[in-house]
Amino acid sequence: MDDRTIAPRDMSRLEKTSARLRSQIACLGLVIERIAGLSGPVFELGLGRGRTYDHLRWHMPGRDIYAFDREIVPIEDCRPPEECIVAGDLAVTLSRYAARFAGQVALANCDLGSYRQAHNEHMAALISPYLPQAVAPGGFVCSDLPLVLEGFELLPLPEGAVEGHYRVFRREGN
Amino acid sequence: MDDRTIAPRDMSRLEKTSARLRSQIACLGLVIERIAGLSGPVFELGLGRGRTYDHLRWHMPGRDIYAFDREIVPIEDCRPPEECIVAGDLAVTLSRYAARFAGQVALANCDLGSYRQAHNEHMAALISPYLPQAVAPGGFVCSDLPLVLEGFELLPLPEGAVEGHYRVFRREGN
Repeated sequence: MDDRTIAPRDMSRLEKTSARLRSQIACLGLVIERIAGLSGPVFELGLGRGRTYDHLRWHMPGRDIYAFDREIVPIEDCRPPEECIVAGDLAVTLSRYAARFAGQVALANCDLGSYRQAHNEHMAALISPYLPQAVAPGGFVCSDLPLVLEGFELLPLPEGAVEGHYRVFRREGN
Repeated sequence: MDDRTIAPRDMSRLEKTSARLRSQIACLGLVIERIAGLSGPVFELGLGRGRTYDHLRWHMPGRDIYAFDREIVPIEDCRPPEECIVAGDLAVTLSRYAARFAGQVALANCDLGSYRQAHNEHMAALISPYLPQAVAPGGFVCSDLPLVLEGFELLPLPEGAVEGHYRVFRREGN
C-alpha cells in the first residue's frame, strides 16, 4: 500500500473527531471505575496536546501516569511531571517500560491514530506485542486503533461510545 | 491581566474539547438548514487543521467557503482550493473580505479560541466590528468565543449543544 494513503471515512472530519472524543470519554469512564482496585500505573501512549492525559489525571488523582510521545508538546497546563514523561520512539521506549512495569500496568490508553492508513497499521503492529507484557491481569487497554492482543478480550462498548472509534480490551485473569 | 493567564475550566481538557465539538456540530446543523435559501459565501475564521472546514463543505457542497488563518496548515485532505484560502493576520484579511462581501455572507463560523484568556479577548474584540458589516440580513455567526454583535440576536442553543461552548447569532432582517 502507498504509505500516503488516507484512511477512508464516511463522515466529516469534525464528526469523526467528535465521535472519537465522545467514545474515548465513555470508554475511559468505564475503565477508570473498574481499575480502582488495581494499584499499577497508567500508560498514556500518544501524549499529543495532553487532553487525554489531563482527563486521566483529573479523574484518577494520585495515579502514576506515564506519558509517551516522540515529541513532548502538550498545552502548557497539560504537561506531565518530568519523571513521568517518556520521550522518543515508541519502539524503544515502550519496549523498555513494558519490561520495567511488566504485569503491573492498570491501563494502557493508546491514542496513536492519524489520518494515514499506513501509519495506523504500523503503530498497531508496533505496540501490540508489548501490551500483554506490560498490563496487569484484569488490567485494560483502550485504543483508537484496532489491536490484536494475546490474552485479552474485547469488551462491549459502554453507553455513549460510537462503534468503530474506540475500543476497550481487558486482560484475562483476576 | 497577565497575557499568559490560562482560561479557567471546570472539566478536563478532553471533556471541554468534546463538548465544544459536539456543540459546534449541533449549532452548525441548525444554521446549515436555515441558510439554505441564502446564496452568499461562508467565512470560516480559524481554519486550523481544517476539520470544521471539511464539515462545512461536506454538508454544503457547492457553497463558496473562505478559510481564514494566520498560517494555513490543514490536514491534507481538508485543504481548501487556493482561491478560497485567506492567509494572514485577521485584522487585515477580515477587514478586506468584510468589505468585499459586505452584506452577503450567509454564515461566519468563528473558531478562534485558545486556552489563553487574553488571546480569546483579543480575538473576540478584533472580529466583532467586521461581522455586522459582512453578514447578510438573516445570516448567521457561530462562535466558540462570546461576541458582542450589533444588530444580531443570540439564539437558544439547539438540542445536543452544551451551554457555554458554542454560540449562534442571527442578524436581524429578512
